[in-house]
Amino acid sequence: MQQYNRREFIAAASLVAATPIINDKMTHNSNASQLVHHVFFWLKNPGSETDRKQLIEGLKTLKAIKEVKQLLIGTPASTEKREVVDNSFDVSELMYFDNVEGQNAYQIHPVHKAFVDKHSHLWEKVIVYDMQVI
Amino acid sequence: MQQYNRREFIAAASLVAATPIINDKMTHNSNASQLVHHVFFWLKNPGSETDRKQLIEGLKTLKAIKEVKQLLIGTPASTEKREVVDNSFDVSELMYFDNVEGQNAYQIHPVHKAFVDKHSHLWEKVIVYDMQVI
Repeated sequence: MQQYNRREFIAAASLVAATPIINDKMTHNSNASQLVHHVFFWLKNPGSETDRKQLIEGLKTLKAIKEVKQLLIGTPASTEKREVVDNSFDVSELMYFDNVEGQNAYQIHPVHKAFVDKHSHLWEKVIVYDMQVI
Repeated sequence: MQQYNRREFIAAASLVAATPIINDKMTHNSNASQLVHHVFFWLKNPGSETDRKQLIEGLKTLKAIKEVKQLLIGTPASTEKREVVDNSFDVSELMYFDNVEGQNAYQIHPVHKAFVDKHSHLWEKVIVYDMQVI
């Protein structure tokens, strides 16, 4: 049986701890430094189907940005209205970046800036969550 | 050239409008009724690495639930601290379900209930966003 000294054992244990969680159910490309950017929009006129559609059309333009690896657009789901569920938003975008640098490049990309210039009059509130996948 | 009457045209146009947005950059399985369930946790003891790890280990158990099609676990990313960015959460889980029924089944699944029973003492606040992909 191979023997390890304490230092070797600690080094090996650290490696295991640093291994990214790869869920075997995941079918999309995953990597250790993957960043999820989830944005929720509350419209100034939440009853306006026109405004909602205009925002959604604007969001679709963002997939032209090469750093945006995946883009999903959505609206509140009809799940149970539990106390912890915030279903008050109107539109949501969920994006994947390879890393923080990709997200930084996206923020200053002309297509993103044009989207904000053209559509920011539509929303009253925005909340952004940036999640580093571990 | 094939001719269409007004009724046929409207029917065809409706079909196009109902087609889900499939981003060609998306590599994970996508379908029209896909539901994204994004949960943010604020720990009672945000400075406790033990509590954070315990919550993350608990979240990993949730992938055993067959309705959970994908699971990502994360912590706040080191993106720029803009006014709209909420990076105050401690841990986040991002799940994909095929539809609302899948999410409902998950809520009452014994593995999910066991997770809540064992870990809810760790968190002070939870916010859930359920997004219907369009």
